[in-house]
Amino acid sequence: MNFLEERILKDGVVKPGNVLKVDSFLNHQMDIALMDQMGEEFRRRFADKKVTKVLTIESSGIAIACSVAREFGVPVVFAKKSKSINLDGDMYVAQVESFTHKNVNNVIVAKKFLSADDHVLIIDDFLANGCALQGLISITESAGATVAGLGIAIEKGFQIGGRVIRNLGYDLESLAIVESMDADTGTVVFREQ
Amino acid sequence: MNFLEERILKDGVVKPGNVLKVDSFLNHQMDIALMDQMGEEFRRRFADKKVTKVLTIESSGIAIACSVAREFGVPVVFAKKSKSINLDGDMYVAQVESFTHKNVNNVIVAKKFLSADDHVLIIDDFLANGCALQGLISITESAGATVAGLGIAIEKGFQIGGRVIRNLGYDLESLAIVESMDADTGTVVFREQ
Repeated sequence: MNFLEERILKDGVVKPGNVLKVDSFLNHQMDIALMDQMGEEFRRRFADKKVTKVLTIESSGIAIACSVAREFGVPVVFAKKSKSINLDGDMYVAQVESFTHKNVNNVIVAKKFLSADDHVLIIDDFLANGCALQGLISITESAGATVAGLGIAIEKGFQIGGRVIRNLGYDLESLAIVESMDADTGTVVFREQ
Repeated sequence: MNFLEERILKDGVVKPGNVLKVDSFLNHQMDIALMDQMGEEFRRRFADKKVTKVLTIESSGIAIACSVAREFGVPVVFAKKSKSINLDGDMYVAQVESFTHKNVNNVIVAKKFLSADDHVLIIDDFLANGCALQGLISITESAGATVAGLGIAIEKGFQIGGRVIRNLGYDLESLAIVESMDADTGTVVFREQ
């Protein structure tokens, strides 16, 4: 069991409806030492990849992305979820459905921040149905850039997202893959990796 | 002139309507070395303060907040802009008007992440009319916690926010205070500090 799986068992809370609450250390309150440990682990897992940019999506992917980008010595670009009047000029846009918020967002990256020369490591905190990651992959490939890999903190292995992205041939690394959860007993079972 | 003012002159773009675009290094693409330099500078400026938590608001404050929190060895809490179904239980709520997006958001922090024992350093990327900061101050004080200080990357000194917050007696430190901008000439004038 790795450091993130241990932390999930210690501080995560299972709620009805297959909701895993990790808001005390990952996506509302954030433990910076844990973020840095994830950054180091992703650096190790993608050590053979050329990475020129880390791409994530607001908001809870940003902290992890910063720790990863520090390890690789590259910038972070975070995709925005709605059109801001401060974003001018040409943008890459993808539509992303949110499982949590039950809505559809336009996800936007300014074209000037991704080029055909970029090797992009895509980072996010959660992977469930994979809509957010598919949007980030679509934006990366619209730019003619290369998807170097995808790094996720917590994957819900019982949802389809991870399988689809691996089937498409992408190098997807999830630090913790939840196979099943039980809100009554508070149990979380992880996939052996 | 400090490192952030120099960077604004080098890579910032002045747009009509007193818009300063810093999206190539601060709030869309993010230079992690710059974030860390800001973290060190806020550590220096608030060296005499007890800090137990860094509080920011999604999304573009998160990266700076993480670098500040690493310096102080404390967690980050980021306020969320809309009620998520993953946020249960009691929350502190403040209403915040966005100058950029021209709308009003509920800004939310789960009560369990702020207590009367906390000394909170509030961090954000921009300060203009001060609505976001006022919301974060309101939430901190609703928790009975102490506002240790407020650290801003870029303050628009020609708008009212900074003056109001300083008049209220808070220790507000802005790394760059823009006195005036001219979109025609691209000029940015900083306040002497």
